Amino acid sequence: MTDDCEVCDVRHAHHSDQFKNDMKNRLSRIEGQVRGINRMIQEDVYCDDILNQIAAVQNALISAGEMLLDAHIKSCIVENIQSGKLEVVDELMVTIKKLIR
Amino acid sequence: MTDDCEVCDVRHAHHSDQFKNDMKNRLSRIEGQVRGINRMIQEDVYCDDILNQIAAVQNALISAGEMLLDAHIKSCIVENIQSGKLEVVDELMVTIKKLIR
Amino acid sequence: MTDDCEVCDVRHAHHSDQFKNDMKNRLSRIEGQVRGINRMIQEDVYCDDILNQIAAVQNALISAGEMLLDAHIKSCIVENIQSGKLEVVDELMVTIKKLIR
Amino acid sequence: MTDDCEVCDVRHAHHSDQFKNDMKNRLSRIEGQVRGINRMIQEDVYCDDILNQIAAVQNALISAGEMLLDAHIKSCIVENIQSGKLEVVDELMVTIKKLIR
Repeated sequence: MTDDCEVCDVRHAHHSDQFKNDMKNRLSRIEGQVRGINRMIQEDVYCDDILNQIAAVQNALISAGEMLLDAHIKSCIVENIQSGKLEVVDELMVTIKKLIR
Repeated sequence: MTDDCEVCDVRHAHHSDQFKNDMKNRLSRIEGQVRGINRMIQEDVYCDDILNQIAAVQNALISAGEMLLDAHIKSCIVENIQSGKLEVVDELMVTIKKLIR
Repeated sequence: MTDDCEVCDVRHAHHSDQFKNDMKNRLSRIEGQVRGINRMIQEDVYCDDILNQIAAVQNALISAGEMLLDAHIKSCIVENIQSGKLEVVDELMVTIKKLIR
Repeated sequence: MTDDCEVCDVRHAHHSDQFKNDMKNRLSRIEGQVRGINRMIQEDVYCDDILNQIAAVQNALISAGEMLLDAHIKSCIVENIQSGKLEVVDELMVTIKKLIR
């Protein structure tokens, strides 16, 4: 068993520093956007402008989710499938369905 | 022209304190969830758990957007339509399409 | 009460021939695509190609829905709001929420 | 190389009769619903009722897509990963992204 598999086995991720940095930037930006939306509502900014901002945050969040899903499939899912733990696919499908809807 | 129409006309919202408080609570919670997701990634939490959290934030964001859209239609859109400014419907459709996709 | 309002009141639509024709073309194409997907599955076409076709039909269906929503808001919703039947907005929001999710 | 892998390799699916039957029933129902929506528009049925029907078809189509995606991952994707053809994951991610948006 490789080190990677062992790591997956105990349900931990093992991302590169570059990946973590990229996600940090994306999520910090999203966090700032949500804080901005909150302030806009308190300051009576025109709703349509806020709704557009909400749609933008939704897209940014979907992109971040897709990036994490890609990393997840390429590491944990692939490793689990290669070591015969096919039950991981059911877990994956449950998660993908949540992201689709 | 009523006061309300005038307010809409200059593209400002005019929410009740209760509405602002409700949105504040929702968006503060979302902001905290996004911050939590960021920390989970830095701490190598299992991706599938994070993806489920991302799906939960997406739903919370959609709910907040729907609540704001509801308030927007019931105030600004209704007032504009009643004072004959039907061009507001085109703006509304552009925004709804962004929320749908 | 205008003729239009009366028509909306009894919950009927009143689309132009051009609109009906456009929707007919869109929906006939979607119907053909769904039939094609069904045939592809029976003929063991590669799943990924079929999934791409399903995504295309989803987009076509969303477009048709947006087109109908646009027509609905610009006719029935506007007329109802103008004649003071604001309860139509609640019905609209329920429907928009179903389209968003 | 197993027979299954060979089949995947040439980009063909190999579904059970039960799966094909289930998909046939789902897609035939969807096809009928789309035809029904077309007829409803031509007959000036109230838009809100049609929009609800469109939302129902969207959900049915998403369910059919999820069912096919599940079968695809459990057969072709698993087999390809097990025989070292990891490039299949990139193709899968492109498709999942289309279904998510």
